[in-house]
Amino acid sequence: MQKKISSKMLYKGCIFTLTQDQVKIENDMIVTRDVIHHHGGVGVLVIKDHAILLVRQYRYPTQRSLLEIPAGKLEKDEDPYVCGLRELEEETGYRCQELRSITSFYSTPGFCSEKIYLYEAVAPYKAEHPRSMDEDECISIEWHALKDAYHMVMEGQIQDAKTMIAIQYAMLKTSNT
Amino acid sequence: MQKKISSKMLYKGCIFTLTQDQVKIENDMIVTRDVIHHHGGVGVLVIKDHAILLVRQYRYPTQRSLLEIPAGKLEKDEDPYVCGLRELEEETGYRCQELRSITSFYSTPGFCSEKIYLYEAVAPYKAEHPRSMDEDECISIEWHALKDAYHMVMEGQIQDAKTMIAIQYAMLKTSNT
Repeated sequence: MQKKISSKMLYKGCIFTLTQDQVKIENDMIVTRDVIHHHGGVGVLVIKDHAILLVRQYRYPTQRSLLEIPAGKLEKDEDPYVCGLRELEEETGYRCQELRSITSFYSTPGFCSEKIYLYEAVAPYKAEHPRSMDEDECISIEWHALKDAYHMVMEGQIQDAKTMIAIQYAMLKTSNT
Repeated sequence: MQKKISSKMLYKGCIFTLTQDQVKIENDMIVTRDVIHHHGGVGVLVIKDHAILLVRQYRYPTQRSLLEIPAGKLEKDEDPYVCGLRELEEETGYRCQELRSITSFYSTPGFCSEKIYLYEAVAPYKAEHPRSMDEDECISIEWHALKDAYHMVMEGQIQDAKTMIAIQYAMLKTSNT
């Protein structure tokens, strides 16, 4: 257990805030921790006819285009389920009968609070008049056979953590481990 | 492809820096991007007698104790291989014959540059006089049967992304998919 002694807001942005906290750790030392506070995100695994639906977009912080599962950022206090349905439709034009929760996880817990909720789309189908995406998003969709996507993970062509977790989950489910 | 127009340093810390960039995106819009710049990290999968070596530590940003593979932050321009050997020894008291590269990935590419290099320890063994860990680290080690660790992933008791990727990788390797 670690206890917050004080917290100073250093930056408040649209995607995250940054605080610098003084923290009393287990051995009673007082240490400084820079913390990124993030509302969390949602990722959706969509599988249809043994193929997975992925989105390609340029990720400026990594200086490259990445292939990822459809995903988005939670608004403050937003229900991850609602966010998952919205992001799936906006990014891919797909809807589904329901989302089934797979798991949730922390993307990089050493300095950031971001928790990602991972869902699987049940009975996905193409929407006739889908909601359009934000005007600052340039995203294209790609279907890949699940086995090919898994090879792309192993060969380093898919490099996004949440997407790797989703693909490996789907492979393990298929292999009935 | 997206092009940086300008970049303003907002914060420079020990673990990461924060810039606010003006970026020209694919449709020629100019948008603002807050970016966390991080030197990256290393995680090490250690399996011995069908059990995996994990470390437990309180992660202040998530307000809970997490079970993770041994891991650490890269110094600027540090070789991930060297970092992996050091962090393995400091956090667990273990050394190994060599590290074998599994893959690398981005932990949260929407706003952060952090890339994590994942290795597997070949022939791990307990060091007689291991390097000690940083004095602000309070870490305990735990061995779990790999199958149990996988169930902990599926049941939400293991919630760290890099650790989930490593455990799923080990399970898929075992099941020869």
